[in-house]
Amino acid sequence: GSDTNLTLRYDLTVPLARYVAEHQSDLAFPFRRYHIGKVHRAERAQAGRFREFYQCDIDVIGSHSPVADAETLAAINSIFEQFNFGDFVIHINNRMLLAGFFESIGLKEGVVPGVLRTIDKMEKISSKQLTEEFEKLGINSQQITAILDFVKMSGSNHEIIAGLKKLGIKNVQFSQGVEKLEAVLLALRSMNVPEKHVVVDLKIARGLDYYTGTVFETILSDYPQIGSVCSGGRYDNLASYYTKTELPGVGASIGLSRMFYALQEVGAIKATSNTPANVVVIPIDEAQHNYAITVAGDLRKQGISTVLYTEPDKLGKKLTYANRQGFRYAVIIGEDEVKKKVVTLKNLEKGTGETVKVKKLAGKLR
Amino acid sequence: GSDTNLTLRYDLTVPLARYVAEHQSDLAFPFRRYHIGKVHRAERAQAGRFREFYQCDIDVIGSHSPVADAETLAAINSIFEQFNFGDFVIHINNRMLLAGFFESIGLKEGVVPGVLRTIDKMEKISSKQLTEEFEKLGINSQQITAILDFVKMSGSNHEIIAGLKKLGIKNVQFSQGVEKLEAVLLALRSMNVPEKHVVVDLKIARGLDYYTGTVFETILSDYPQIGSVCSGGRYDNLASYYTKTELPGVGASIGLSRMFYALQEVGAIKATSNTPANVVVIPIDEAQHNYAITVAGDLRKQGISTVLYTEPDKLGKKLTYANRQGFRYAVIIGEDEVKKKVVTLKNLEKGTGETVKVKKLAGKLR
Repeated sequence: GSDTNLTLRYDLTVPLARYVAEHQSDLAFPFRRYHIGKVHRAERAQAGRFREFYQCDIDVIGSHSPVADAETLAAINSIFEQFNFGDFVIHINNRMLLAGFFESIGLKEGVVPGVLRTIDKMEKISSKQLTEEFEKLGINSQQITAILDFVKMSGSNHEIIAGLKKLGIKNVQFSQGVEKLEAVLLALRSMNVPEKHVVVDLKIARGLDYYTGTVFETILSDYPQIGSVCSGGRYDNLASYYTKTELPGVGASIGLSRMFYALQEVGAIKATSNTPANVVVIPIDEAQHNYAITVAGDLRKQGISTVLYTEPDKLGKKLTYANRQGFRYAVIIGEDEVKKKVVTLKNLEKGTGETVKVKKLAGKLR
Repeated sequence: GSDTNLTLRYDLTVPLARYVAEHQSDLAFPFRRYHIGKVHRAERAQAGRFREFYQCDIDVIGSHSPVADAETLAAINSIFEQFNFGDFVIHINNRMLLAGFFESIGLKEGVVPGVLRTIDKMEKISSKQLTEEFEKLGINSQQITAILDFVKMSGSNHEIIAGLKKLGIKNVQFSQGVEKLEAVLLALRSMNVPEKHVVVDLKIARGLDYYTGTVFETILSDYPQIGSVCSGGRYDNLASYYTKTELPGVGASIGLSRMFYALQEVGAIKATSNTPANVVVIPIDEAQHNYAITVAGDLRKQGISTVLYTEPDKLGKKLTYANRQGFRYAVIIGEDEVKKKVVTLKNLEKGTGETVKVKKLAGKLR
């Protein structure tokens, strides 16, 4: 029966739109939320593209303000500044600007999705393939040249904005898009987001998504081959499936599982240890268990992550465990140690050992 | 095809057993892990018993040591000591002890699961119903009296252990169960877990579960009606479905979603605000946006959670938003404020307002 039905999530944005539409009378707008959750892939699973994966989203619903777009980008900037993945660039564009431009060169609305998809592939395919794809869509050579010249515009953000204005395109969508993009950049400046971290890139289209304004992708400068690690944008009609109220939104999404898989594949990160604890406390015999429990308890109370190893194994096996798990220190407690209120402290990385008074142990390990 | 199949999790322990069985050659034992994750209910969803819910588990796999049982209980104790739900009691028992006792009074193995289930219901049903349930299982009146006298044994932990030994039951399982229970209590003492927080209760059976030794349930003293909020125990055969290697384990589980639902229902907790931020910064007009962005950025840099409200609404609507969301302070910025490098700080709880220099704002709000 319907009682056993489960709706799996394929992303976190569509369920958000639905939630906000259903609860709009209880919420105050703009509604901000973050969500770290598991979602499921509808398409075929591949290496690094898991069937189940974690995604981290931030969204603001109910605001048309470009400041909300800028706040989203500033949050992403501050997240990636805290990671240790080296430098990064958030490539930003605006879909209205793109749509207005396409209109201005006489493209029919029906071919725009195809054009956006082709632009998305630009850097992966040859210029011959690119031209072929455009021709298949029924785009003439003059239009192709116009599109390619347009998306390749480069320079500082200021120069690109100035360049866009100079094109003299008389199209309302285009002008509004440029204006919004400029407003987002202005707000980012007030937010002290470095200009090298948010760069206008007219190639960014997010062609398959539901975006209507700002769009962006985040590329790690040292690992461009893994593609965008955080993308998003403004979606002004997402909730229209669920409600007649206009619920504009802007958000960003990090595909956590894929990002960590990709970073591991390229050697940017690696698991350094099997344990988050630094210290293992090892009583030699059962007679030292209670003493060892007290020592481990003291270390934990002082904020030192500690594992207690009370298996009835020989010392050799205990030390094999300690080395294999990647602890930095082993605190060994035998009959003598209990008598003298000391421990034998082994530095497992250096292979050295010393006798330490229990009172001084935490200080040594911190 | 099989590619689209998803195995939903119904708990976190069975998948753990499977994981450990599959990866046993790569792991060092004892293997410790915690897991906070979403699981799905196979049975009918009810109030507070959601179809999808979050569960928090800790487990140690590959240890027979009673110290591992004690560490699990000590971890639960320290978690519930940090919650603000008042006092609590972890009711502890041992399944070997129970099984040995049942054997000693001549119960056949086949009726034991039924007896355990009946004991679990003891406090919810009348003594007449209880007797009837026992009789249905084919248990004679002498045995019923013996069972009831046994499970009702009370006193301090020390007194109950002494009482169990005095019963003079000659049964290996029983003796081993008592010994294990005593060892767990001894280790808990070395761990400084208060005796009032872990109390021997011979009624605890966890009859429907896969436990083989220690079993426990956690009851909040002020809200006994919501039942156990954290339960667990030792399961020595759980991985036997997946591997021939013996992989004994001990663990505990908090049903997070149900616990918070129940605590909310009894009024123990409530959502106090719609926002985790204390402060909302409100520019009156667009002309003050950049100034407001700077002020909000400064507050955030100083660790003060701040929301920036840049919607083009009238001030009244902005303040309605601020009140509805439950911010404690609104920082209002108009033309005058920008000129004088001040803000108007409204205390939304008290309804008071004052002019504050921007430099002194963070200090006021901390």
